[in-house]
Amino acid sequence: MSLLVFGHKNPDTDSICSSLVMTNFKKSLGIDAVSCRLGELRKEAEFVLNYFGVEPPKMLKSVDENDKCCLVDHNEFGQSVDGLEKATIVDIVDHHKLGGMTTAAPLSMTLRPVGCTNTILYSMYKENNVEITKQIAGLMLSAILSDTLIFRSPTTTNDDIEAGKTLAEIAGVDYEKYGMEMFKAGTSLDGYTVEDIVNMDFKAFEMGSKKVGIGQVMTLDIDAVMSKKDDFLNYINESDYDMLYLAITDIINEGSYLLYKSPDEIVGNAFNVTPIQGVFVEGLVSRKKQLVPNLTPEVEKL
Amino acid sequence: MSLLVFGHKNPDTDSICSSLVMTNFKKSLGIDAVSCRLGELRKEAEFVLNYFGVEPPKMLKSVDENDKCCLVDHNEFGQSVDGLEKATIVDIVDHHKLGGMTTAAPLSMTLRPVGCTNTILYSMYKENNVEITKQIAGLMLSAILSDTLIFRSPTTTNDDIEAGKTLAEIAGVDYEKYGMEMFKAGTSLDGYTVEDIVNMDFKAFEMGSKKVGIGQVMTLDIDAVMSKKDDFLNYINESDYDMLYLAITDIINEGSYLLYKSPDEIVGNAFNVTPIQGVFVEGLVSRKKQLVPNLTPEVEKL
Repeated sequence: MSLLVFGHKNPDTDSICSSLVMTNFKKSLGIDAVSCRLGELRKEAEFVLNYFGVEPPKMLKSVDENDKCCLVDHNEFGQSVDGLEKATIVDIVDHHKLGGMTTAAPLSMTLRPVGCTNTILYSMYKENNVEITKQIAGLMLSAILSDTLIFRSPTTTNDDIEAGKTLAEIAGVDYEKYGMEMFKAGTSLDGYTVEDIVNMDFKAFEMGSKKVGIGQVMTLDIDAVMSKKDDFLNYINESDYDMLYLAITDIINEGSYLLYKSPDEIVGNAFNVTPIQGVFVEGLVSRKKQLVPNLTPEVEKL
Repeated sequence: MSLLVFGHKNPDTDSICSSLVMTNFKKSLGIDAVSCRLGELRKEAEFVLNYFGVEPPKMLKSVDENDKCCLVDHNEFGQSVDGLEKATIVDIVDHHKLGGMTTAAPLSMTLRPVGCTNTILYSMYKENNVEITKQIAGLMLSAILSDTLIFRSPTTTNDDIEAGKTLAEIAGVDYEKYGMEMFKAGTSLDGYTVEDIVNMDFKAFEMGSKKVGIGQVMTLDIDAVMSKKDDFLNYINESDYDMLYLAITDIINEGSYLLYKSPDEIVGNAFNVTPIQGVFVEGLVSRKKQLVPNLTPEVEKL
């Protein structure tokens, strides 16, 4: 029976790449292993696999008492495959907090407080002198850039940066440029209409006597929005809301571009910027913690 | 605040040595750490510390929310220090099954399915190029010999044997001879009377119409018993029991020496040996699974 290697449900890039990288590691050590995934590929992982020419892990629905499992990028039953309590867990590699699992027998488990599971896998390859091919380096690097937001996330450690830089050389890419390309593909708005994008993550608020709508889109595909600025403004201006704000949030550069139906002075005062359509507000990333509390007093002043 | 490093409650040799060896490892990497223990030293660990001239870990009663902890040789709240749920766990090294702990934040955790925690620590020293002194090698070796019964336990892996043999060279001891000396000291019957020893672990049974007593002592200090064979036989023969069997069990050589008040044929038939006082019965180690079921039909035949 092959060892089944998989990341968490609703897999992100680290879970997909960890599964592929760990499976290759096990095979290099002579262990019969199969790379699996517990859900559909997201756009970001799809981009990574296409870029480095790697087949996706096979879909796994459930396991039973005959299965031997290796968990990567998670260590909680609730995040894992159905039936796992009955199966045998032989190995876990992860970078999350300890999640309360129990096993019937001793196992291998490697947790490290780093930004990405692939940073741990990188050190396992090195310790065991397992060859890191260009493809494997590409997968590891992509996961590290994804989890650490190209080394910008506060979870980033020196180990992540060292691993990432070495892997970028082996993979033959400029990590900053490649990372931005990956995030852009992962947050692409291709196929969405103006209406789709405004309403993708939209909430309505009462501020004083005004009905205010705030939409937010996380994307690096800023051009896709800005090239259709007039279409967005037409749609926004025709809405029923007294005021409507659309924040196009760039998670890498930590800020948001604003398109709005609103008196200019509200935008100017709320965010301390020159109020023009499409203005970039540095540091503005949270609707709950920044957009709503900054806008509310300004709207209520009217 | 120093990192507190400790093994499980009611510490065995692996828990005591793991704490000392891990503390030295952390210090070698520049981390302020203190070796602790959660209970009294047993005779075996006392022998080891005396042999290699090492101070015992300091006694630790409880921890609180200000403490940073490193767990060795266990990974369950129930086996650990009081108050651990409130403290911060930064590292765990263990060889037992996964015990259901949760933490608030990511941590380091290294579990391996090997016979002894010190086998894992040995590989960590090697990977990090931390010097293994004669003392540290002695502590690691002692724990490995203790947990694997000098490589005889079915839990023994190749990693344990390789580590043990290398460590014996560094420590400058013959591992077989040293291990037997350690087990002998650990199971010493010094200070116990004949009465103490017979009654140390004694159970009474009804077999047919007979009242039968069976005592068992686990020791490698066979001489301490055999040199007083006549005293033991006098005490046993004066007892109220119709039959009384004392098994002096040698866990390393997996067998028991028998002293008895009993018709010879019962001993001969039950254990397929020539019935003489002090006879060694190979493979006889369990009262519940071997002594009682083998004796019962023979006594009932009378």
